[in-house]
Amino acid sequence: MTGTKTTGGKKKMMFFSGRAHPELAQEVAQQLGVEVVPTKAFDFANGEIYVRYEESARGADCFVIQSHTAPINQWIMEQLIMIDALKRASARSITVIVPFYGYARQDKKHRGREPISARLVADLMATAGADRILTVDLHTDQIQGFFDGPVDHLFALPLLADYVGTKVDRSKLTVVSPDAGRVRVADRWCDRLGAPLAIVHKRRDKDVANQVTVHEVVGEVKGRVCVLVDDMIDTGGTICAAADALFAHGAEDVIVTATHGVLSGPAADRLKNSRVSEFVFTDTLPTPGELSADLDKIKVLSIAPTIASAVREVFEDGSVTSLFDEQ
Amino acid sequence: MTGTKTTGGKKKMMFFSGRAHPELAQEVAQQLGVEVVPTKAFDFANGEIYVRYEESARGADCFVIQSHTAPINQWIMEQLIMIDALKRASARSITVIVPFYGYARQDKKHRGREPISARLVADLMATAGADRILTVDLHTDQIQGFFDGPVDHLFALPLLADYVGTKVDRSKLTVVSPDAGRVRVADRWCDRLGAPLAIVHKRRDKDVANQVTVHEVVGEVKGRVCVLVDDMIDTGGTICAAADALFAHGAEDVIVTATHGVLSGPAADRLKNSRVSEFVFTDTLPTPGELSADLDKIKVLSIAPTIASAVREVFEDGSVTSLFDEQ
Amino acid sequence: MTGTKTTGGKKKMMFFSGRAHPELAQEVAQQLGVEVVPTKAFDFANGEIYVRYEESARGADCFVIQSHTAPINQWIMEQLIMIDALKRASARSITVIVPFYGYARQDKKHRGREPISARLVADLMATAGADRILTVDLHTDQIQGFFDGPVDHLFALPLLADYVGTKVDRSKLTVVSPDAGRVRVADRWCDRLGAPLAIVHKRRDKDVANQVTVHEVVGEVKGRVCVLVDDMIDTGGTICAAADALFAHGAEDVIVTATHGVLSGPAADRLKNSRVSEFVFTDTLPTPGELSADLDKIKVLSIAPTIASAVREVFEDGSVTSLFDEQ
Amino acid sequence: MTGTKTTGGKKKMMFFSGRAHPELAQEVAQQLGVEVVPTKAFDFANGEIYVRYEESARGADCFVIQSHTAPINQWIMEQLIMIDALKRASARSITVIVPFYGYARQDKKHRGREPISARLVADLMATAGADRILTVDLHTDQIQGFFDGPVDHLFALPLLADYVGTKVDRSKLTVVSPDAGRVRVADRWCDRLGAPLAIVHKRRDKDVANQVTVHEVVGEVKGRVCVLVDDMIDTGGTICAAADALFAHGAEDVIVTATHGVLSGPAADRLKNSRVSEFVFTDTLPTPGELSADLDKIKVLSIAPTIASAVREVFEDGSVTSLFDEQ
Amino acid sequence: MTGTKTTGGKKKMMFFSGRAHPELAQEVAQQLGVEVVPTKAFDFANGEIYVRYEESARGADCFVIQSHTAPINQWIMEQLIMIDALKRASARSITVIVPFYGYARQDKKHRGREPISARLVADLMATAGADRILTVDLHTDQIQGFFDGPVDHLFALPLLADYVGTKVDRSKLTVVSPDAGRVRVADRWCDRLGAPLAIVHKRRDKDVANQVTVHEVVGEVKGRVCVLVDDMIDTGGTICAAADALFAHGAEDVIVTATHGVLSGPAADRLKNSRVSEFVFTDTLPTPGELSADLDKIKVLSIAPTIASAVREVFEDGSVTSLFDEQ
Amino acid sequence: MTGTKTTGGKKKMMFFSGRAHPELAQEVAQQLGVEVVPTKAFDFANGEIYVRYEESARGADCFVIQSHTAPINQWIMEQLIMIDALKRASARSITVIVPFYGYARQDKKHRGREPISARLVADLMATAGADRILTVDLHTDQIQGFFDGPVDHLFALPLLADYVGTKVDRSKLTVVSPDAGRVRVADRWCDRLGAPLAIVHKRRDKDVANQVTVHEVVGEVKGRVCVLVDDMIDTGGTICAAADALFAHGAEDVIVTATHGVLSGPAADRLKNSRVSEFVFTDTLPTPGELSADLDKIKVLSIAPTIASAVREVFEDGSVTSLFDEQ
Repeated sequence: MTGTKTTGGKKKMMFFSGRAHPELAQEVAQQLGVEVVPTKAFDFANGEIYVRYEESARGADCFVIQSHTAPINQWIMEQLIMIDALKRASARSITVIVPFYGYARQDKKHRGREPISARLVADLMATAGADRILTVDLHTDQIQGFFDGPVDHLFALPLLADYVGTKVDRSKLTVVSPDAGRVRVADRWCDRLGAPLAIVHKRRDKDVANQVTVHEVVGEVKGRVCVLVDDMIDTGGTICAAADALFAHGAEDVIVTATHGVLSGPAADRLKNSRVSEFVFTDTLPTPGELSADLDKIKVLSIAPTIASAVREVFEDGSVTSLFDEQ
Repeated sequence: MTGTKTTGGKKKMMFFSGRAHPELAQEVAQQLGVEVVPTKAFDFANGEIYVRYEESARGADCFVIQSHTAPINQWIMEQLIMIDALKRASARSITVIVPFYGYARQDKKHRGREPISARLVADLMATAGADRILTVDLHTDQIQGFFDGPVDHLFALPLLADYVGTKVDRSKLTVVSPDAGRVRVADRWCDRLGAPLAIVHKRRDKDVANQVTVHEVVGEVKGRVCVLVDDMIDTGGTICAAADALFAHGAEDVIVTATHGVLSGPAADRLKNSRVSEFVFTDTLPTPGELSADLDKIKVLSIAPTIASAVREVFEDGSVTSLFDEQ
Repeated sequence: MTGTKTTGGKKKMMFFSGRAHPELAQEVAQQLGVEVVPTKAFDFANGEIYVRYEESARGADCFVIQSHTAPINQWIMEQLIMIDALKRASARSITVIVPFYGYARQDKKHRGREPISARLVADLMATAGADRILTVDLHTDQIQGFFDGPVDHLFALPLLADYVGTKVDRSKLTVVSPDAGRVRVADRWCDRLGAPLAIVHKRRDKDVANQVTVHEVVGEVKGRVCVLVDDMIDTGGTICAAADALFAHGAEDVIVTATHGVLSGPAADRLKNSRVSEFVFTDTLPTPGELSADLDKIKVLSIAPTIASAVREVFEDGSVTSLFDEQ
Repeated sequence: MTGTKTTGGKKKMMFFSGRAHPELAQEVAQQLGVEVVPTKAFDFANGEIYVRYEESARGADCFVIQSHTAPINQWIMEQLIMIDALKRASARSITVIVPFYGYARQDKKHRGREPISARLVADLMATAGADRILTVDLHTDQIQGFFDGPVDHLFALPLLADYVGTKVDRSKLTVVSPDAGRVRVADRWCDRLGAPLAIVHKRRDKDVANQVTVHEVVGEVKGRVCVLVDDMIDTGGTICAAADALFAHGAEDVIVTATHGVLSGPAADRLKNSRVSEFVFTDTLPTPGELSADLDKIKVLSIAPTIASAVREVFEDGSVTSLFDEQ
Repeated sequence: MTGTKTTGGKKKMMFFSGRAHPELAQEVAQQLGVEVVPTKAFDFANGEIYVRYEESARGADCFVIQSHTAPINQWIMEQLIMIDALKRASARSITVIVPFYGYARQDKKHRGREPISARLVADLMATAGADRILTVDLHTDQIQGFFDGPVDHLFALPLLADYVGTKVDRSKLTVVSPDAGRVRVADRWCDRLGAPLAIVHKRRDKDVANQVTVHEVVGEVKGRVCVLVDDMIDTGGTICAAADALFAHGAEDVIVTATHGVLSGPAADRLKNSRVSEFVFTDTLPTPGELSADLDKIKVLSIAPTIASAVREVFEDGSVTSLFDEQ
Repeated sequence: MTGTKTTGGKKKMMFFSGRAHPELAQEVAQQLGVEVVPTKAFDFANGEIYVRYEESARGADCFVIQSHTAPINQWIMEQLIMIDALKRASARSITVIVPFYGYARQDKKHRGREPISARLVADLMATAGADRILTVDLHTDQIQGFFDGPVDHLFALPLLADYVGTKVDRSKLTVVSPDAGRVRVADRWCDRLGAPLAIVHKRRDKDVANQVTVHEVVGEVKGRVCVLVDDMIDTGGTICAAADALFAHGAEDVIVTATHGVLSGPAADRLKNSRVSEFVFTDTLPTPGELSADLDKIKVLSIAPTIASAVREVFEDGSVTSLFDEQ
């Protein structure tokens, strides 16, 4: 036709990182065989963030990684600003990588007049220009549905369970949920490791004063090696109390495992003082210096290969589902 | 000012019902002291639905009730068509009442390449013109976040628990979750009734052939009166198997309670043949004739007063939260 | 540039089918030289639909065919759910094929407080994730404008008119519109076959009691072979009454033709008992068994080549308009 | 509650007019008992339009009237700009009144690669901030569905038919559609006046050279008083040719009636030279000076009372449907 | 009508405050005669913000004030979360008050591949649920257009200029813009105070090495009392350098005035060490403790009455424009 | 996989032009080595615009150029209609080229109850289907933020400044802003040409009657060659008055330069009668015949190479920023 000019198509991948957790970004980029795109990013004196990319993103399939670690609002805003800049720079597609998805716990109105901040975060990403979200072990699976587009949901379970499975005598293993809300996760561990289930259950003691709770253990833990499983450990209060309850009920040993080591506030002290023999995390979040430096009983496994494989499947139109087919 | 004409404001409530569960609509309307707005609704020969309201809805705060019972796609489409008609008829606001929210169980991608139909339903409602959703005991609370607007989430727990609490010896009561996914609901019952918790847990038996599962009971049920709690009973398979497991572990009696009695397919036979002494539901869905007609052990409590109170609070700008303050 | 990784682009077509009319899907797929993508789809006991694709759709140009036959709301919902699943599975584009577009007749408010369901259907498709609609002979052309994106509108007129044109003596042919609303379609037939026009016109008889109508024939039909043309035959009431009026006014023979053989309710009986010599349809909808089985006077032409050609043009960025250039 | 301050609600109506057809606006305002809101509106030297309201519109229910007369793009843009200004001035609601809806004839793709400008106009209005459209006799009813919100569709039929009905001997009356596309409108006239139907039908003459068309008259018109009905008369070509055909087939007299007297280009000459005894329009559009000044056979009926009644119903939450109940 | 229930309408105002600048919120509330709605708001250990309102907001016109002071991303997120909670709590309308609008300086792409963060902030507010924005002295007026809805833009000019006008000998006054981008603001001061204009203009010195700039003074400042006007003072670098240039060119005295005293980083030291005789701000932002405590030459005027008047006009459907009519 | 069919990807560019400024379109097309796509476009008698493309645009990257010259509303509507037609014709992407962006001066509410028409234009483009805007020297840079997508903003400064720089003795050059609002543009000229700055400043004369203004010159212009720089010259009033003021203050010569020569209304006379020695524009807009024909002192530079380079970068996923790197 007279009015048409044709050229061959091609696809470009570009990998960007916010400033929250550069080590993980570097590791993923290395696995992918790319470099993180050089980016100028700093805070103005009043805290406003400035971002500018040093290479053209026009027509590229862009991946923007940011872990929502503290200061969390700062890093969420930075990621939104990075997405906006890519949208205005004519990126062909924008995939937002959040190894740890902030505000995931506010995924419903626990009581009236609360926000649903996890939905808000999904909407903010979409508004800024996100086409797809890639994330690891959401607090609840339903958060996938908060985003009106593809969510590639990766699992750390194979990574964590394989590690734990090779360290302990499986015949002595019991998988324990630290409260009523995590039983489904524990259930998946039971399936994978062929181990029985127990639950630590908080309950108001009717005989004692108001609001006092006791930690009931539902199921058999006496003489067992208990693996307490959770998606994240934040201040460590719940999990350490659960571990105490298990020891009190005769557990021989307790291992704690979680995908996300948030480890904020009093977590460092609690972990150091706990009788738990090992805490196993992935590096979706940077480990606070005071813990990573000197504590033998903390083990951090790298999530970078998992993320890099998923990015490769996304870019090459392969299948992310296939990565977890063995499940 | 010269160009302005002023009159006093007023508010009008109008209450509409689809054809899925007219008895519940009548009951709610009666509690509200209004009549269901006369509506012409029928199916054309090829199954297309026709709807027309016989009164003007202009400027009114409209409430449209429809239970998502079988044939469920028919009733969802009818509700969407009713909302569209109200939007085009200049309704001031449209509140969608779904006592039972269809497709709530498809609230996440269990595996790759699945839909998230519960989000889709929320989006369809919004597209048709819904401003607010009012519903009862969602399968997961996170579904609130699927709708980009107010969701008034009502609870049947007070209704059901008060009924059960007055029927049995509380000292013998154990609350049981029928699987790993419902433990949080059971937990709320424990709190309200001051009872201990147990869980029925499906587990692959390693010693037997592939995919065979055994029903483990985690927690103490021997000699106890077990209340198996769930949000809905569909075909009754899970719940009846759980009840059998409880009896097999020495339970003295088992009562089953759920907000939504879906009761489809083989449910009627299973309930009739079960050793469970009583099944307690609300009437968010119509009870299938074969069950409601002749079965003493089925008890249906009316959810209409709960819905009517909430509608009143919504219309009069009161607080729906306050209705459940005792929790 | 340092941060960029490049690969060659490619395009993938995938063809999916709902469960409404699998024969047509197979036929189209065969014409295209592809297979229908293996898909798991079934109804739960309470009528909720489950869908999962057995192959990755990531990055593919996806075509999803569903005829809106009875039970129509079921099949519309299934198509919406299939679209949602594709959107969340990172499809590159989603083209919705509806050989027969449901609710097309509710394309305006005939009276106040009605829905415009044909617009609603377009909006629902868009909300679920549709990028384009491909359809055949819409009830009114304006429905194209209900969708905010490309609508590829195919015509069965060449197929039907060529068939009829070769079967009858053209010099005796008169094209007849069965009512005032279909005259424009009849007009196109007149142009293609070079035949005169007549209209059957319903009119209230002033001399008889209220609401009684007589079928006036406007134009000359005595001794003519009349081709009654419509876009769809539903219950067959209008068309059979129109045929009777033509015979009463001296028509020698009457042939009925329509793109869509809805044929619901009393249609089978009416067609069997009619003096019409032949009914000609395409297979945009499955023909009810009682008609297809034993009735010589029903002729069904295959629309599959027309749809397949259009899909090929869409996928290869050709021109759908060019397919109908001879018009 | 401590944080709440309450006052009584009230409703304000404000009525605005663009510069296209101020006479109609004044007339409607007078019927409503309001004044048109003083508005500064002019064109800059380069044709950009400036608008500013001289009174606050905050919290008011605003109605903005503009007839889409020539220069039509100018007046559409002015109305869009007026809507934008109201949106930004915190209007409570914005109802767009278009007595004649521009681009209504481009309501579908007649051929490939055309726009659907009538949908575009609806979308532009919505984007600017329109909440509702109020219009008179759309070219096709389906245009209602182009707007995603309430469309109050008024009919001039009662006004025009009552006028015609009292002027002629009804026993001699035949209603005529000037082409295949307007038969449905003619049909409604037949119902209201109890008159028979005829159609002027353009047809390619096979015996003569390509693309030459003859005007066939389908139905009986000899010795009849023919009322040619259309929604609009633009250049008058079709309608005057149809009238000629009627006279050629022996019509005793021909009256032409249409809601919208567009009357552009050669219309003035054609109407003056036609044998048609009377042309009856409403004033949805200003009548070109050359016609209104000196031509006895042109009759313009006022649509203002119809519009004013509808505005009143809209503002007072009454029923616009009820205005046309006698139909 | 049978299906309708009517009650009198009423309007409720509720006033909410984030945690960024509670003093200003209190002051505005006091002016309005309301109390700030009791709100539970705190940070979790990992920095996630929790918000819950202690009173029902259903049906209320809600105003949410937050100054975007440091840590700015924290306070923007908090405001977004507060808006989300109000939307889900059925607020009738949500007006976002931002006395200082964060990221206003990133209102365009200064260079390629930058974000337009000021637009992003507007979009985020809209996504969370904001219906209207009320703000003071935007960095550029065009930011009004970044929000797709009403923006009530308040001016501190009357407040600041009246203060300055009464303190100095007007015949000696020259208004000075600190750079090329602020001349329009200075121009408005000239108009109000009847004073001449000067500009400090940064220019690369061609005779010296690269990127070195000199501060040229365009206009006459010798022996004059110069009022340097800006919308905001952030680190104070530009403004103090401009003041130095004025003194170097013979200015008798220099007063600095700006609506927003951001005063971050080295600002405190720079202001203390400057020869400027007085710095005049409003309290749209909290003044850093080290400055407010001990520095005589800093004057802070209260913006609360201006905001309170505007809120009142908004709530009572009055005119915000009228508040600045004297301009 | 069984259900997939793959072909190699390719990219097509198509270049379309409205009827406003065909010379510029031809010139850009020629630079690109393509032809303008043959398009049927005309006005109906009543002013409605008809557009149809004569080649398929399916899958193409489409560029649609239209200069917003008089009659401006006509050409804006034509461009919107062209975009709509491309969207419905399955264009892969639509880039809107507006060498001069209409309504750019209404980029804020100068006073209450005004529209922000520049935002409205951006929204209308997006609604019609625009994916990207490519434009030259916006009246204010912030207008970039009015569009929610990529805006490629081109600069005529290099073109204009290089021309002026080679024509005059740089040591005598002073850059002058014609009012307070254009100082930032003048500032960029100073940087590029290494020249000092002056400003013409309108000021109310306190000693004379109300609203009379005098043109103050801030900065040194005596004996200098002044380059008055603006983004556009419309009626020429401001710029000619500014030139007069410069001559009155002793300027040796005055050259006027602006990207956009709107030149409407009295501009021709003013330019002819002015003492300005040369007016330099680009051809973003057609030059009115009376000026281009006979006036030596008007110089028009071609913007086509600049636009063509940008289109090429956009199509080939290069960098538009790089085109202006020397800045």
